[in-house]
Amino acid sequence: MRYGAIEAGGTKFVLAVIDEDMQIVARERIDTRLPAETLADVFTFFDANQVDAIGIGAFGPIDINKKSATYGFVKATPKPGWRDFDFLGAMKAWRDIPYFWTTDVNVAAVGEQQLGAAKGINNLVYLTIGTGIGAGIIQNGQLLSGFGHPEAGHISLHQHPDDTEFKGVCPYHGTCFEGLAAGPSLQARYGVPAVELGQEHAAWQVEAYYIAQALVNYSLILSPERIVLGGGVMHQQMLFPMIRESFVAQMADYAQVPNLDEYIQPIALADDAGVLGCALLAKYALEQQ
Amino acid sequence: MRYGAIEAGGTKFVLAVIDEDMQIVARERIDTRLPAETLADVFTFFDANQVDAIGIGAFGPIDINKKSATYGFVKATPKPGWRDFDFLGAMKAWRDIPYFWTTDVNVAAVGEQQLGAAKGINNLVYLTIGTGIGAGIIQNGQLLSGFGHPEAGHISLHQHPDDTEFKGVCPYHGTCFEGLAAGPSLQARYGVPAVELGQEHAAWQVEAYYIAQALVNYSLILSPERIVLGGGVMHQQMLFPMIRESFVAQMADYAQVPNLDEYIQPIALADDAGVLGCALLAKYALEQQ
Repeated sequence: MRYGAIEAGGTKFVLAVIDEDMQIVARERIDTRLPAETLADVFTFFDANQVDAIGIGAFGPIDINKKSATYGFVKATPKPGWRDFDFLGAMKAWRDIPYFWTTDVNVAAVGEQQLGAAKGINNLVYLTIGTGIGAGIIQNGQLLSGFGHPEAGHISLHQHPDDTEFKGVCPYHGTCFEGLAAGPSLQARYGVPAVELGQEHAAWQVEAYYIAQALVNYSLILSPERIVLGGGVMHQQMLFPMIRESFVAQMADYAQVPNLDEYIQPIALADDAGVLGCALLAKYALEQQ
Repeated sequence: MRYGAIEAGGTKFVLAVIDEDMQIVARERIDTRLPAETLADVFTFFDANQVDAIGIGAFGPIDINKKSATYGFVKATPKPGWRDFDFLGAMKAWRDIPYFWTTDVNVAAVGEQQLGAAKGINNLVYLTIGTGIGAGIIQNGQLLSGFGHPEAGHISLHQHPDDTEFKGVCPYHGTCFEGLAAGPSLQARYGVPAVELGQEHAAWQVEAYYIAQALVNYSLILSPERIVLGGGVMHQQMLFPMIRESFVAQMADYAQVPNLDEYIQPIALADDAGVLGCALLAKYALEQQ
């Protein structure tokens, strides 16, 4: 068997073919344009690289509720042409093979859970902190979903005492977690990209405080066994000990969590988490048939 | 078959016997004293009322992690004598029948899900707002747990603009959800019990704001299909429309949720939710044998 992966991001799509041993045997990156143009390239790639099933991790919000009339659609995105686009329907019209349809963060969560930083862990939060903040949650070995998929980057937080004047950058909520801590919030506060702030800059204490506060909330609601952090902001590796320290202070000895060095970890698969997760979910879709 | 129920609260235990038709055929209420005295009464009750399995919903925090050496224990409670008490072990030493061991809020969540306000709903948050705030979460038809059980009453929130001076009443976190919105917070702010504040008092707008903020956060993380609200504070029924209105404002049209009148509902089983949930879980424990 060969599994197809479509990691469908707002700026680029990564397409890949993965074999039974979870080795990536082909990979291509294409720019995200209008749906018809982008999918034409997807079809060309998989016409040249035959697969038995495809896992799709799409930028959201998307409809993953199988009872819904718009299951398989991209929902309220500002990305031109994609709002209300029937992504899964277009794939099925091209070729009727098994598909697994979920979010970009969910496929990365599955990759890290089965092959990466949370191998063998059945209760996991995978969080990516970059231009936005998104979470994939695995509970009892399964992707958490309900009426829809999590949008856990948009939870409300209280502001750091040194940051009370900041209005946040989330167009919906202002000072939600994403509004306070995604990459663009650092640029908005300091006028330079986050990577240009020195590692000693006070910005990172504030950033660690917000990330730790969100992790405390996820821990209190989900009681996961591990939290895996990825995304551009988390390339700043000095953040990890700062987040762990702030987590302890904010949890205030209330709920029991595992050893923090194991509990809060960086991703292990780097850029491969998404496509490998897609392949694992394609395999699952094939087996469920 | 006859199922036993132990709803073990910090001030009272409710013991019950429930038949196959989920009818309560015996019930007794006892005061919570030291573990040995309290359990002596529990044994007397169930010696007189034979059952085939028992569901226990205990005040927390408790250890529900089957891999843990202290599985079945009550953990860090201020209640004299109960800290680190092996509750489940004491029950098994008395009689070796099947037990289901979980939190008081989890049993009520199961009762409401199977027989009450969330019948047939597989993804549910049950929240009780009284002297404390606790949540039982059902995800994909199962009680959500991981490293431990949820402590979702202690998530951090940001303060209402008219309430920024209030320090909160949570001994661990000050202004967490419980610290800002449990019954004692109203007493702390206004010097009288919550029930003595008139329905028009500005306190309720602030209260609705905090409850709605927490529900937005639960919705963004868990994407439940329904949220059921119980506990003493929720006896103030005028809070429901206020919470729904504030929920809409704070969600800011971001994530899709069901129709709000169905989504945010009061409990349906009143005081029976806990013992019925215990019985349903006792039945499950028996079937799993």
